Amino acid sequence: VTAHDSPAAAFRAAVEAGDVDAAVALFAPDCVFHSPVVHAPYEGRESLRAILAAVTTVFEDFRYTAEYAGPDGHVLEFACRVGDRDLQGVDVLRGGTGPDQPLTELTVLVRPYSAATALRTRMAEVLAGGAPA
Amino acid sequence: VTAHDSPAAAFRAAVEAGDVDAAVALFAPDCVFHSPVVHAPYEGRESLRAILAAVTTVFEDFRYTAEYAGPDGHVLEFACRVGDRDLQGVDVLRGGTGPDQPLTELTVLVRPYSAATALRTRMAEVLAGGAPA
Repeated sequence: VTAHDSPAAAFRAAVEAGDVDAAVALFAPDCVFHSPVVHAPYEGRESLRAILAAVTTVFEDFRYTAEYAGPDGHVLEFACRVGDRDLQGVDVLRGGTGPDQPLTELTVLVRPYSAATALRTRMAEVLAGGAPA
Repeated sequence: VTAHDSPAAAFRAAVEAGDVDAAVALFAPDCVFHSPVVHAPYEGRESLRAILAAVTTVFEDFRYTAEYAGPDGHVLEFACRVGDRDLQGVDVLRGGTGPDQPLTELTVLVRPYSAATALRTRMAEVLAGGAPA
């Protein structure tokens, strides 16, 4: 077990290790996920788990490239590929403003449009083929 | 003239005031803009000016909602509408790590996909109707 300065740092480490369970465990039970693609929020840890598991399959050559902190949370910047498209994105994490505070919200934004289109297609395929959230 | 803690804070103030010239003046001549829609970077202040002027027309009810800082730059989170679509976005600003340092890079990411689609359509219309960058 590694100690982290913040739940955001622990989230980064869990994602980098491909450990979806550890990432989800940092969130409150009533956490909210805002998808880069879908308008409506996803509510609860089980929705988040299904999304993160799917993303692990869809994002290739994933790496975090920068970190930012503010009074409301943290931003983690990343790069990856989806199929043959280069994708750039950010994870905006809210909550977790102290070491013992759970994360409450994850919002993901991506660019450019061609990569968002590829992500939308691949996520629909993977979520349709998996267990319901 | 208002003093700002950082070029990122000055950028936020210029955008909030609708002052495209003041926003562009914070950037280095060889700055780079990464569009939320287009893969290829836009180079130079005049490209940035054309984009920011178009965005001013396309983004309605624009407001910044959060700020984050890191060793490489700043992230400004915003919300707006494009037509009847709610859009959430971030400005990632690089450079400007001291009060006298110019900004070097602006990257914009948006969500959800429906809003990115509306933005793509509206930006193409506005840029086609305006002066070439």
